[in-house]
Amino acid sequence: MTPSITITQAMIDSYAAISGDFNPVHVDPDFAAATPFGRTIAHGCIPLEPVFRLVQARLGLAVLPQGTGMKLRYLRPCHPGDTIGIVVKADGPEGIEFQCVNQRGEPVIEGAVRLVSGGIS
Amino acid sequence: MTPSITITQAMIDSYAAISGDFNPVHVDPDFAAATPFGRTIAHGCIPLEPVFRLVQARLGLAVLPQGTGMKLRYLRPCHPGDTIGIVVKADGPEGIEFQCVNQRGEPVIEGAVRLVSGGIS
Repeated sequence: MTPSITITQAMIDSYAAISGDFNPVHVDPDFAAATPFGRTIAHGCIPLEPVFRLVQARLGLAVLPQGTGMKLRYLRPCHPGDTIGIVVKADGPEGIEFQCVNQRGEPVIEGAVRLVSGGIS
Repeated sequence: MTPSITITQAMIDSYAAISGDFNPVHVDPDFAAATPFGRTIAHGCIPLEPVFRLVQARLGLAVLPQGTGMKLRYLRPCHPGDTIGIVVKADGPEGIEFQCVNQRGEPVIEGAVRLVSGGIS
């Protein structure tokens, strides 16, 4: 089973406090309702979290080894209520190609991780 | 002035609750003291936050436009007490090359963002 994250407004509010990014498009549902998105948007790091967990699980490590490379392209915004999972497109000794997809199967991030050895478990 | 983030254990604990990644290397200072790092490590998204803020400020946008690309390489772990800032190495209409550096000037992440147009302010 690959990792996934179900986004909540509480999670977004908590991330705003970590990052200091309290833009109303993230934390004010009324404001966000009047934007083209119609609802709040998760900060870009939140849908990325399953990628870190996938790679850690793949390597059996608690944190990514130094030198780990990552390539990302953001494709769609993520909102409260979305569940973001991962589809592995390619998996080899040197890296993983993936898509983060929402519960409708729409890709929200596509990318690749270049694996390096080392790190701590 | 470029964005920066000063990492605290509370921030890491809060991020653990968002991500579900409560590995003791992140949240248990006693456990972490016995690892090669000697102290807790911030989840990989935390030192990345100034990058999102830099790009948003550069574009005058609240969120990254769809299609935004990012290339990253993790170079060093980040710990509570670290202040992570950004050094812009190149800045053109199509993208920004950067290093996230800690308060000792050591690069912790290096990377590039490929800018696309669009998005909401």
